[in-house]
Amino acid sequence: MDIEKVNSMDFGEFVDVFGNVIERCPLIAAAVWSQRPFSNLEDLEKHFFAFIDALPQSGQEGILRCHPDLAGRELQRGTLTAESQREQRGAGLTSLNADERLQLAELNAQYRARFGFPFVLAARLSDRAAVPRELARRLHCPPAQELRTALGEVKKIGHLRLADLLGAEQTL
Amino acid sequence: MDIEKVNSMDFGEFVDVFGNVIERCPLIAAAVWSQRPFSNLEDLEKHFFAFIDALPQSGQEGILRCHPDLAGRELQRGTLTAESQREQRGAGLTSLNADERLQLAELNAQYRARFGFPFVLAARLSDRAAVPRELARRLHCPPAQELRTALGEVKKIGHLRLADLLGAEQTL
Repeated sequence: MDIEKVNSMDFGEFVDVFGNVIERCPLIAAAVWSQRPFSNLEDLEKHFFAFIDALPQSGQEGILRCHPDLAGRELQRGTLTAESQREQRGAGLTSLNADERLQLAELNAQYRARFGFPFVLAARLSDRAAVPRELARRLHCPPAQELRTALGEVKKIGHLRLADLLGAEQTL
Repeated sequence: MDIEKVNSMDFGEFVDVFGNVIERCPLIAAAVWSQRPFSNLEDLEKHFFAFIDALPQSGQEGILRCHPDLAGRELQRGTLTAESQREQRGAGLTSLNADERLQLAELNAQYRARFGFPFVLAARLSDRAAVPRELARRLHCPPAQELRTALGEVKKIGHLRLADLLGAEQTL
């Protein structure tokens, strides 16, 4: 898909294609459509990120709260989005043993209680051994710093999803 | 459900319950959770509306673009949200004849082409005769005025959905 194709989309098509670049936030893709035409992938991405950066803190926390836990209830129940399912499987999180699942569930619960949003990580850039390590580390970060870190992960996930959709090489 | 129950919810429960107060914008409910505790229904509603009002114009247009057409493709396909399905059925839009459906489809398409978002109307306060009349009227409004009108309808829909969830009397 090239950028001319993207620029030719009506808002319905655009939201169908890009609505989950930011997990479960089709509002953001729907807002970004107002900024068309886009000159290239970087330009399109810039508008997604600028929208996130301009939100009040509650809105940024809201974005994080639309994300599922890693190896959590939604993975067990099969209710993840297709993108999230693929990313969690790619990181090996669908094949944890019971002890590993329990360990992650406990860390996820502590993180949610401390920060008021779930632990978000670009799972495609991680693996089943690194996820609990990184979660345990970030659990002790100051809240303002952790919000910034988590939004950075949202952007990495969005970057990779956009690159998938536009058939671009996936670099970070 | 009383307000103490609402205030006791973690963000996952809150988004499960209130995630579609604004159609397909769980991000907004997820952001509003940051403002708890709420003193009552009016206070909770005030935070939903304040979030909408504080968005840049692209974000407000984005909210509208997350809404389905009235009597449109999604109603035909059965892919409406439960709330929207109930509201459109209540207005008699599920039992239009072929001519009425065609008329609405043409008006919806003209409206989307003119304004860059779909025609949004609190269907529960309307009926199958009034919908095409109101659509034809709003089609000729200035864009800035029409954006305000449409966001007013989003708020009426949100008000009624919140009142449903909290078991309150539905007044406007």
